[in-house]
Amino acid sequence: MKTRDRILLKSLELFNEQGERSVTTNHIASSLNISPGNLYYHFRSKEDIIYEIFLRYEASMVSALSVPDDRAVTYMDKIGYFEAIFRQLWEYRFLHRDLAHLLEESPRLRDSYRQFARKVMAQAYLVYDALRTAQLIRASEQDVRSMIINIWIVTTSWASFVMSSGFFGAEVVLSQQLLRRGIYQIICLEAPYLQGEALEKLPVLLAEYKQAAEMV
Amino acid sequence: MKTRDRILLKSLELFNEQGERSVTTNHIASSLNISPGNLYYHFRSKEDIIYEIFLRYEASMVSALSVPDDRAVTYMDKIGYFEAIFRQLWEYRFLHRDLAHLLEESPRLRDSYRQFARKVMAQAYLVYDALRTAQLIRASEQDVRSMIINIWIVTTSWASFVMSSGFFGAEVVLSQQLLRRGIYQIICLEAPYLQGEALEKLPVLLAEYKQAAEMV
Repeated sequence: MKTRDRILLKSLELFNEQGERSVTTNHIASSLNISPGNLYYHFRSKEDIIYEIFLRYEASMVSALSVPDDRAVTYMDKIGYFEAIFRQLWEYRFLHRDLAHLLEESPRLRDSYRQFARKVMAQAYLVYDALRTAQLIRASEQDVRSMIINIWIVTTSWASFVMSSGFFGAEVVLSQQLLRRGIYQIICLEAPYLQGEALEKLPVLLAEYKQAAEMV
Repeated sequence: MKTRDRILLKSLELFNEQGERSVTTNHIASSLNISPGNLYYHFRSKEDIIYEIFLRYEASMVSALSVPDDRAVTYMDKIGYFEAIFRQLWEYRFLHRDLAHLLEESPRLRDSYRQFARKVMAQAYLVYDALRTAQLIRASEQDVRSMIINIWIVTTSWASFVMSSGFFGAEVVLSQQLLRRGIYQIICLEAPYLQGEALEKLPVLLAEYKQAAEMV
């Protein structure tokens, strides 16, 4: 693997495990057994590394939300979208743990994150519009727009909720399974608008994700 | 006013305006024209001040959510609850801007915040149960429990969403009106479960809060 990619992978690993604040470029270099000079040859600063990691996060999120153009969107497609999204939230979990701080520190990250948020919500709108066309949800445009904002907030804030609320135990450590539990909340958020096949599948789906939650 | 209260009020003001991280006990003392020694006589540390401010926040939140015991809860009662809650979120806005950091720094705040979260969600359940009894909402217990979690997340994360998403403009400054816009999201979240008088009042209510949003 190229040194540049090794730096990004190791940085992501350390940020996720220890929190971005407590990881310096020297930590990253030493845990890769490379010199700080070698690291600086590839990245001018930690902000450079964080920004590059964000671009990869953004790319994987946007690709996870692409609507098939050769066939109608199914409700299970959308569940698949959420599985993919929550996998990315897990892979890049340090980003949302301390987002306000990261955005304060980096104006270009702030701008890119905002474009990213608008892009994803616009793409989500296409997905729900396709589901409306496929008569899998019955909702007004206003319903869909406000639901997408609520889904965005619950999705991006779920990890913080798990950690701050103590809802899953006082000394909780964030696990991929606990993060995935957020999908249950999203399904509940959409449930009132479902119809047809989507509505028929709902009880099984809720049971499945609820169970995953109670296994926690 | 007692010095102790003046310290708490000034600290809250400075935390809200400048962010808790950039405010030291010396800043607080000097902006009150008192000596650091005088401040330390009342509070041993900034953590002490933050914890005391949290206790006041908690008290006002819990009292805002009390169910009337002399009559049935009306839907407008609940809108009143949200107005009160979002006023408190504004008054104590520094708390949720950097909550993860505050909870990391203070184990007793972490424990108290978790008890607070459980208390508020339990109280919210009583409110929605009363609304079910009053036949103002039609929802299963599972619907209500997952809705309360989603409402909690959207409510406590709304300010962060406004700031991080750029949804209300790139160089947005959090205003009380923008924060209050979150109530529109909560109403949309409950809308599918409303019936009776609550459902009749919904269009007017949505229009009112939507308008408040578009005036932003």
